[in-house]
Amino acid sequence: MILPPIPTPFDRQGRLDTAAFRELAEALEPLVDGLLIYGSNGEGVHLTPEERARGLRALSPRKPFLVGLMEESLPQAERALQEAKEAGALAVLATPPRYYHGSLGEGLLAYYRALAEKIPLFLYHVPQNTKVDLPLAAVEALAQHPQVLGIKDSGGDMARLAFYQAHLRDFRVYTGHAPTFLAALALGAEGGILAAANLAPRAYRALLEAFRAGRLEEAQALQKRLFPLGDLLARGGVPLLKQALRHLGLPAGYPRPPYPGESPLWREFLPVLENLRELGGTP
Amino acid sequence: MILPPIPTPFDRQGRLDTAAFRELAEALEPLVDGLLIYGSNGEGVHLTPEERARGLRALSPRKPFLVGLMEESLPQAERALQEAKEAGALAVLATPPRYYHGSLGEGLLAYYRALAEKIPLFLYHVPQNTKVDLPLAAVEALAQHPQVLGIKDSGGDMARLAFYQAHLRDFRVYTGHAPTFLAALALGAEGGILAAANLAPRAYRALLEAFRAGRLEEAQALQKRLFPLGDLLARGGVPLLKQALRHLGLPAGYPRPPYPGESPLWREFLPVLENLRELGGTP
Amino acid sequence: MILPPIPTPFDRQGRLDTAAFRELAEALEPLVDGLLIYGSNGEGVHLTPEERARGLRALSPRKPFLVGLMEESLPQAERALQEAKEAGALAVLATPPRYYHGSLGEGLLAYYRALAEKIPLFLYHVPQNTKVDLPLAAVEALAQHPQVLGIKDSGGDMARLAFYQAHLRDFRVYTGHAPTFLAALALGAEGGILAAANLAPRAYRALLEAFRAGRLEEAQALQKRLFPLGDLLARGGVPLLKQALRHLGLPAGYPRPPYPGESPLWREFLPVLENLRELGGTP
Amino acid sequence: MILPPIPTPFDRQGRLDTAAFRELAEALEPLVDGLLIYGSNGEGVHLTPEERARGLRALSPRKPFLVGLMEESLPQAERALQEAKEAGALAVLATPPRYYHGSLGEGLLAYYRALAEKIPLFLYHVPQNTKVDLPLAAVEALAQHPQVLGIKDSGGDMARLAFYQAHLRDFRVYTGHAPTFLAALALGAEGGILAAANLAPRAYRALLEAFRAGRLEEAQALQKRLFPLGDLLARGGVPLLKQALRHLGLPAGYPRPPYPGESPLWREFLPVLENLRELGGTP
Repeated sequence: MILPPIPTPFDRQGRLDTAAFRELAEALEPLVDGLLIYGSNGEGVHLTPEERARGLRALSPRKPFLVGLMEESLPQAERALQEAKEAGALAVLATPPRYYHGSLGEGLLAYYRALAEKIPLFLYHVPQNTKVDLPLAAVEALAQHPQVLGIKDSGGDMARLAFYQAHLRDFRVYTGHAPTFLAALALGAEGGILAAANLAPRAYRALLEAFRAGRLEEAQALQKRLFPLGDLLARGGVPLLKQALRHLGLPAGYPRPPYPGESPLWREFLPVLENLRELGGTP
Repeated sequence: MILPPIPTPFDRQGRLDTAAFRELAEALEPLVDGLLIYGSNGEGVHLTPEERARGLRALSPRKPFLVGLMEESLPQAERALQEAKEAGALAVLATPPRYYHGSLGEGLLAYYRALAEKIPLFLYHVPQNTKVDLPLAAVEALAQHPQVLGIKDSGGDMARLAFYQAHLRDFRVYTGHAPTFLAALALGAEGGILAAANLAPRAYRALLEAFRAGRLEEAQALQKRLFPLGDLLARGGVPLLKQALRHLGLPAGYPRPPYPGESPLWREFLPVLENLRELGGTP
Repeated sequence: MILPPIPTPFDRQGRLDTAAFRELAEALEPLVDGLLIYGSNGEGVHLTPEERARGLRALSPRKPFLVGLMEESLPQAERALQEAKEAGALAVLATPPRYYHGSLGEGLLAYYRALAEKIPLFLYHVPQNTKVDLPLAAVEALAQHPQVLGIKDSGGDMARLAFYQAHLRDFRVYTGHAPTFLAALALGAEGGILAAANLAPRAYRALLEAFRAGRLEEAQALQKRLFPLGDLLARGGVPLLKQALRHLGLPAGYPRPPYPGESPLWREFLPVLENLRELGGTP
Repeated sequence: MILPPIPTPFDRQGRLDTAAFRELAEALEPLVDGLLIYGSNGEGVHLTPEERARGLRALSPRKPFLVGLMEESLPQAERALQEAKEAGALAVLATPPRYYHGSLGEGLLAYYRALAEKIPLFLYHVPQNTKVDLPLAAVEALAQHPQVLGIKDSGGDMARLAFYQAHLRDFRVYTGHAPTFLAALALGAEGGILAAANLAPRAYRALLEAFRAGRLEEAQALQKRLFPLGDLLARGGVPLLKQALRHLGLPAGYPRPPYPGESPLWREFLPVLENLRELGGTP
């Protein structure tokens, strides 16, 4: 399964644009296996709770979708969880509380267990954003819970994926790290939730398909070709992703201020994007 | 000047307790030079915007007070800033946006400048919580702005304080790192905004006073005596601070779930606290 | 190709035991495609130049072998390089100078180029030991040199391997990170130089073979089974490797003091090793 | 006490120049309280054991001197220690073994204790070079040994110095971090072993003197004035230090290849150095 973490459109003044949000989701959904809303590239943390609920109500995906949940405490999380439930999410994708992470202790497990009582969930390990670790021992403990379905691991540390492959059962692993996508598949990931899949949905599905069918050389060729896209996007983040989508004519809008509307990596990225477009890979 | 970052009380169920908040602020205010509300130890990030405003309205400090502002985007920050202004804050104390910090770029300066157009502010460098850096070059650039009054630097990296001392003028530096308090004073800090000052307000004022008066041996003796308090509190964070205040009979309440009500460092901390109490140092 | 970095035996008093060294090399050589001497697990940095030369002279491998070169300056490296050349090494495997790495600058490229004038070489990226980075831009620049044959990358960062795969040609990549071995192969590594291959030479060759032949499920099954071995050994290092070899009756000796003769991970490791032995995997 | 870690001169071709070494030591010795040979800036790790012994024999300091010992194993260290003893060193200054630090475990304490049986020693914490930590618990344990005289702590982490001040007795602390020199004194350091003291020996002694005499404003003024020198030198390392000494006409020679003869920070450093020279501060 390939899911894009779709961006949340803001206008130049930083106002949430729900019409654009709906339009963007409808453009991407047919090309992929589902959506991640308010995920790593969805700027969920840039929304007030009211805006977040309003954005969700504007969408009506037909394919399965996940909703990101990046809250700092349980009462905040329960509110976000309720919104996701009402919107019909398959599951939430939840980062650990982070601001006081050093004194969280056993609260880490308590947090996830409290959420899992109320909704199916995927753990979300994305240390480049959260700057906190989700220890393997905690993942192993939480994987026992029937409502903890799996993990999205975006850190790019393949030793973690090798651990999941070797030690956990009935635990679904998605990588969020496009530059190492094929490696993640080799280590048992069942798919990717990749910012780059907003731009090259068909190509990532083709890579996954080639791998599943045992056509390893084809998979390696796609991995090589897609590497620059995934690598630059991992470095450029939301500003680069939105700029690229706008360039392709999609209503992705702008990052919320003070994040820049244009990425310093754009010049390096443009030929990569154009090359992809010529091959018919873009949405 | 010694300011405590006062904790925000929640009850066992995680509900904001505004009556306790007011009572706690009133108990501490007479012993110090002012207050920091929603700062490093104030769990501002654990509140919804409504709760945050409600908490502020419950207080009515007579001494100058700062309000912490730890938002992720400018629209969110402008709302928080407005609340602080209405409450009569001397200034806000603002961390950098952090979740997408890697792609913030020039947005860092833009963020602080946009805030400083609307309210006096202190920069807030607290990497143990935000996990992001506030580069010295950015501090130097922002120090030029007339409404950027100074910085609270809680990282404990004295090379930064030495830099401020050598390179910046009319820039007020407060340390937030109790274990190195005397070092910060030697390097030009004008005071401390210290979690430990919730527990030992008089002793930190005495240390500051001794230093100002040139009684270095006395200052060093206080530094030595206070080190274990500041050191343990820096490691134990909000759960330990609230537990200590409760132990002293102050209505600090509990950390918001899933943060633990009791600290694993309590056993080590208790004799330090009792020793301080015997000397008449606690509030 | 699977190469073990063979350990250098010392007796209990820390004296180099050249007879054991020769015996150990002769026991392992038939099971693998070649040897790495004085590599990550060879304690080359624990030898004086005289001892290092004496050790080399005691060996006479028939298969191709590499010699590790972990020196701090060019004059020291040239001496080590000369020894390797005289011993008949295929190439040296050279870490960057590390103690003053922060002020090395262009010296990094100069270092490798000076060595490559005199002997074929592999770059050696092993940040867990050297604690310094070999930047991708430097690897890319050095890959142009005809005598720079490739790299041994032990860091386990698969994004680096994906970079080599996508950007470099005629550049041979060996992984030194056993826990992610299959991922490295998927990303184009041609083999492994693995401490774990001292203990399970046949199994790593079988994994490589299965992958090359397109038997991906078999490769994944071996990856899963070998993960605990590679993972524990990566954490336990030389003391654990030598203890395991001694347990198997091989004359690996002891780490040089003050390194401990027994590993704190032994208890966890023993059942993994015994399981491997029962399957006939050990040398 | 102010001690400079004197550089070890090499000629342009990287050959040890013992005559220059002697001349340099004799030029600096009268201006300071003693010398550190083969310390953080002495490139001890760039010498073969023979060169190291030859260098030592070329010197004959009259003031007390320390000898740096940065070995990887005990047999290597015992040889270096013997040389230092024969040369008449007051003590050795010893870093922890570093290449296999992750599996050192109890070997850390064993290492220092074995050395301390044979010669008085100072612990040497210089993580910017060694990239390993010397845990506070280990320092505390070793401080009990009668031949462990104290520590040179170059990391610049003042919380460590605050710990020594609060918890250790009869333990001599020297800072090796010039940018925070006054802070270290406030936290109980008895002096500095500072690269910058090669260039400004009198000024650092004046700062120390002012502090000891309770003339805090004067000490702060010197701290401010010296900050750029110490800060740049901490970043530029050996290449910058040697270039500065050569500029002043002292026979410091060049760093050993592949380290660059000229520092990229030279342009920024030159006005700082010239300013110091005009004030009569240079040797």
